Amino acid sequence: MIIRIKRGYETKQLDNLIELIKSQGLGVEPTVGTEYTVLAVTGDTNIIDIDRIRAIDIVDGVIRIKEPFKYTGRVNHEENTIVNVSGVKIGGNNFAFIAGPCSVESERQIIEIAKAVKKAGAKILRGGAFKPRTSPYTFQGIGKEGIEILLKAKKEVGLPIVTEITSVKYLDAYSDVDIIQIGARNMQNYELLKEVGKTGKPILLKRGFCNTTEEWLMSAEYVMSEGAKDVILCERGIRSFEPLTRNTLDLSSIPMLKEITHLPIIADPSHASGVARAVKPLSLAAVGAGVDGLMIEVHNDPENALCDGAQSVKPELFKDIADTVKKVLPIYGKVLS
Amino acid sequence: MIIRIKRGYETKQLDNLIELIKSQGLGVEPTVGTEYTVLAVTGDTNIIDIDRIRAIDIVDGVIRIKEPFKYTGRVNHEENTIVNVSGVKIGGNNFAFIAGPCSVESERQIIEIAKAVKKAGAKILRGGAFKPRTSPYTFQGIGKEGIEILLKAKKEVGLPIVTEITSVKYLDAYSDVDIIQIGARNMQNYELLKEVGKTGKPILLKRGFCNTTEEWLMSAEYVMSEGAKDVILCERGIRSFEPLTRNTLDLSSIPMLKEITHLPIIADPSHASGVARAVKPLSLAAVGAGVDGLMIEVHNDPENALCDGAQSVKPELFKDIADTVKKVLPIYGKVLS
Amino acid sequence: MIIRIKRGYETKQLDNLIELIKSQGLGVEPTVGTEYTVLAVTGDTNIIDIDRIRAIDIVDGVIRIKEPFKYTGRVNHEENTIVNVSGVKIGGNNFAFIAGPCSVESERQIIEIAKAVKKAGAKILRGGAFKPRTSPYTFQGIGKEGIEILLKAKKEVGLPIVTEITSVKYLDAYSDVDIIQIGARNMQNYELLKEVGKTGKPILLKRGFCNTTEEWLMSAEYVMSEGAKDVILCERGIRSFEPLTRNTLDLSSIPMLKEITHLPIIADPSHASGVARAVKPLSLAAVGAGVDGLMIEVHNDPENALCDGAQSVKPELFKDIADTVKKVLPIYGKVLS
Amino acid sequence: MIIRIKRGYETKQLDNLIELIKSQGLGVEPTVGTEYTVLAVTGDTNIIDIDRIRAIDIVDGVIRIKEPFKYTGRVNHEENTIVNVSGVKIGGNNFAFIAGPCSVESERQIIEIAKAVKKAGAKILRGGAFKPRTSPYTFQGIGKEGIEILLKAKKEVGLPIVTEITSVKYLDAYSDVDIIQIGARNMQNYELLKEVGKTGKPILLKRGFCNTTEEWLMSAEYVMSEGAKDVILCERGIRSFEPLTRNTLDLSSIPMLKEITHLPIIADPSHASGVARAVKPLSLAAVGAGVDGLMIEVHNDPENALCDGAQSVKPELFKDIADTVKKVLPIYGKVLS
Repeated sequence: MIIRIKRGYETKQLDNLIELIKSQGLGVEPTVGTEYTVLAVTGDTNIIDIDRIRAIDIVDGVIRIKEPFKYTGRVNHEENTIVNVSGVKIGGNNFAFIAGPCSVESERQIIEIAKAVKKAGAKILRGGAFKPRTSPYTFQGIGKEGIEILLKAKKEVGLPIVTEITSVKYLDAYSDVDIIQIGARNMQNYELLKEVGKTGKPILLKRGFCNTTEEWLMSAEYVMSEGAKDVILCERGIRSFEPLTRNTLDLSSIPMLKEITHLPIIADPSHASGVARAVKPLSLAAVGAGVDGLMIEVHNDPENALCDGAQSVKPELFKDIADTVKKVLPIYGKVLS
Repeated sequence: MIIRIKRGYETKQLDNLIELIKSQGLGVEPTVGTEYTVLAVTGDTNIIDIDRIRAIDIVDGVIRIKEPFKYTGRVNHEENTIVNVSGVKIGGNNFAFIAGPCSVESERQIIEIAKAVKKAGAKILRGGAFKPRTSPYTFQGIGKEGIEILLKAKKEVGLPIVTEITSVKYLDAYSDVDIIQIGARNMQNYELLKEVGKTGKPILLKRGFCNTTEEWLMSAEYVMSEGAKDVILCERGIRSFEPLTRNTLDLSSIPMLKEITHLPIIADPSHASGVARAVKPLSLAAVGAGVDGLMIEVHNDPENALCDGAQSVKPELFKDIADTVKKVLPIYGKVLS
Repeated sequence: MIIRIKRGYETKQLDNLIELIKSQGLGVEPTVGTEYTVLAVTGDTNIIDIDRIRAIDIVDGVIRIKEPFKYTGRVNHEENTIVNVSGVKIGGNNFAFIAGPCSVESERQIIEIAKAVKKAGAKILRGGAFKPRTSPYTFQGIGKEGIEILLKAKKEVGLPIVTEITSVKYLDAYSDVDIIQIGARNMQNYELLKEVGKTGKPILLKRGFCNTTEEWLMSAEYVMSEGAKDVILCERGIRSFEPLTRNTLDLSSIPMLKEITHLPIIADPSHASGVARAVKPLSLAAVGAGVDGLMIEVHNDPENALCDGAQSVKPELFKDIADTVKKVLPIYGKVLS
Repeated sequence: MIIRIKRGYETKQLDNLIELIKSQGLGVEPTVGTEYTVLAVTGDTNIIDIDRIRAIDIVDGVIRIKEPFKYTGRVNHEENTIVNVSGVKIGGNNFAFIAGPCSVESERQIIEIAKAVKKAGAKILRGGAFKPRTSPYTFQGIGKEGIEILLKAKKEVGLPIVTEITSVKYLDAYSDVDIIQIGARNMQNYELLKEVGKTGKPILLKRGFCNTTEEWLMSAEYVMSEGAKDVILCERGIRSFEPLTRNTLDLSSIPMLKEITHLPIIADPSHASGVARAVKPLSLAAVGAGVDGLMIEVHNDPENALCDGAQSVKPELFKDIADTVKKVLPIYGKVLS
């Protein structure tokens, strides 16, 4: 951490500040230049509350230098994390497809879709039971019953499942769920993050549509500091000024993020675009950017889907996407799970 | 709602779509033009899932015309809501100051600040007990003890209190709290919104820093559809590309929002700027834009504040702000609570 | 165009509005519903000034339905435009590499780089002579001399060239330039757009970093309405709140934009990221999203480049990128120019 | 400037870097810490090309510490600049109203509006002759004739005038114009900035709707480094994700910007909102934030205005706004010009 001191400070004020920092067990190396004075702070600077330093009269600015990512960063964990879900690997050079409907509607629907996506190459089944929706007046998911249906599909079709949680009070229902998903809107619901972190299960953490990658990793820190080791980051588009798609898939961040973190990163091209016919090109784009998997919304009857039909692809299109991705993966040094 | 039909549709497809809409109890008035065909849908269009309509092959686009704000909109509630908290009025032409520290630190701290802000004109005391923080490694608030301290201050100083809730599991602790605050990060934590809505207490709903005003009102709908009548909207700045301030206070939206909703709107210039010396000009700006109150962070010792010290003003500056606001309020037709 | 009328309007006011629209040679089809009244306007609605309609008392809102893209849209030009520059094709299923340094520094530098990128597969040479820079105190390019050097390289190495123009007053210098580039900062410099449109040369039009795709196409309309037929759109990243990369490459828009326009679209992964090691993954991502070409900054000595060295790749890395792209192009149905 | 060095660098590499910096006449003060190494660079660091430094292998990041604002910053010019236009003062504690129509339409229109706004308190007349419009198919202004009409109005009504320039080729027409305006879309048209800077006239520089305050000041540097002393900055709203208003007036930046620059800052509430009925509250908000003037679009017949009618206020409303502002100015320590 670098602390920039205002011109015209008094020596006593600087001494006090140095003392304050040292009292927290940190080191300070001052550079008193001809034009400006800076303090380089060494040690575990994560414990410093930057706002508190900024509030001090002689402080002109505070610049963090060490990344604050204890569990998610590569500093303490250089090699890639490979999440293993019942034998399905995500991360490192392993790539996996996750597919299924936005919402669980009925047992028949789920089993039919699960069989179709499995046949096309999906290794994990997704489906929403609790659905956070912007309006209280639209379909909110069928709740716990949805999770029971997913578990039946898991048994019958033989795919591990991932489904979203929206409140700590439903946690009991997730004991047999393979991967618990935290949705974009709950990315900074820290109480929920801490609770799911305690389960030790793999957590699929979607990026909030207006959160920086740093905030995203800090949310993963909440999960991992409670014990979870397997966090899968899921880029699903950020809010921009461009109205042509619902969100802007932030693929520029993927290669930079992979330098910082060892966690696997997947993309959700369905939510990012909100338009079924954009799902294939965005899937291929994400694979090019280096993601470790794709989560795609597939519905056998999008026009009658109870939620997000506009962005759901039919099983045939999913197969086409999967087939194309399978051809490019070896060129990019990836192995299909 | 206007549905735009793609060129080259078949009559049967259009008939099916019209049938589908009518089957939901809605009216349809088609305009089959020479260049394009549109359907005007009448009735309670809030029940329509726009995504489902968009997924239909012949649909080119869907445009909502009626505002979807059942409880928060002026359509069903023309006059301004005036929230009355122990005699303190917010809304209509009533203006109130809310002030206090970011975090509750100790009984002594709170009581000292409460007395100072009361003297300067504040009518409601704020203070954080549960603090949602981006990093799990920074101070998270002192929890339930903080609420007990606030209640002691309420009793001793005679100010109603507002404090943030971060999880449904802490709800019991808020039974004597006057106004429950939902923070920006939890604005779309719908499970929490529904639970606080059931308490019937006034709810101070902060805008998420990346949420549109429509999403904000929809979150208020979650609260109000559970029974709450008194929601106070709090603008606290949105995320923009400009780095000079932490967030950009969206004052442009205030006059437009007041046309749509009858709910009172206040501003939080402290979080918006993140810088104490910007609090006065932004307070005056917000008053000019027409807010019904200001929530300001005040700390007697910002340099040693456990949280957000950089944005906290000292009691003397708060008094200066309040004194200036008092002079302009009558010019703007507002009455100080 | 759909015009939404406010509730409580008077019949006379509506009649006046209808008259006003008809007086411009347009058709009006009103839908007087039980809950709202809308006017559907038919004909060449591009001539209507939306702001003028919005200013009318009884107008609640105006929604455009027909796309306003006379020259750039597919409505009047269904098949893809294939730009042909001295035999190099861009557009349709033709893909081309454009490569070269950010700035022209010397004849030797350019010729060396030109030979290297040609060998690796580039078909067009890029290089900046006039450089628009945020600060007046940094290197601004070597001006007309730079264009002369580029023309020598064109002759010696045998690659057509593309270079940016920053003012109408330099237009004379571009008579032998193959493609004139309009940079992001000048995307809405309409006087310049009109002048380059008159040359009839192919124009490479970069997207402004904060412009919507609609504004981008409207700028292409400025160029094309002056006579130019060959506009190449270049996506180079938009400004978002994410600081990890300089800009966010908006690949989500590519497939949607291709539905609207027949013009070829290329991507510039160098400017988008601002970081050399992100150029390869972003190139592959852009190819996946469906671009018709890539423009990549290549420098033989990035550490001593006079501009944008941080984002320039060395010739060897460019070769690696080109080799990988060549492998995936056939899978995506594209042919290398 | 602080340069952060990557871990694991070699001493020789560091020495080379230090040498490179010193060779440019700058000083270097290294801090070789136990955990990281930083170089503090002293002297006129504006001349350093940050990108060039970033491209060096051992460099992890570059942090600018000194502000790069040679002419616009307070470092070399502490006291406020007060622009004096024919006796009308803007800046310091002087506040002025600028008003007039979006577009010059006819002599009669301008003179009528000029008289009305003068009576209400405006001291400078605005009006557009050359209008940069997003679409080539909408009204583009009446050009040079518009400037002649403005000059007639100036003579007849006795108000100095401000009008926008869109290309260097029209510069001759501006010799009797009092203030030359650079519009938002041309804020980074550096060739134009340099030319208007040479005239020595006061320049009203609008902020680009997607430009940071730093980019804005750097554009003012382009103007001032050519000789101009009087630049008036005009905040007119930035692009955000919120659709309720056309742009988001960035009032949060005003107080921070005033710390950095000595130049006067005014606001344009008309363009920011795009809605006439938001102009009064946004005017009062801007005054609260500390602006030195307001530029307001006034039209005597907004419904028939040839451009931006929706945001134009009628003379009566302008008078109401001016009267209210006059009441609050003394409270804020401002004097009306």
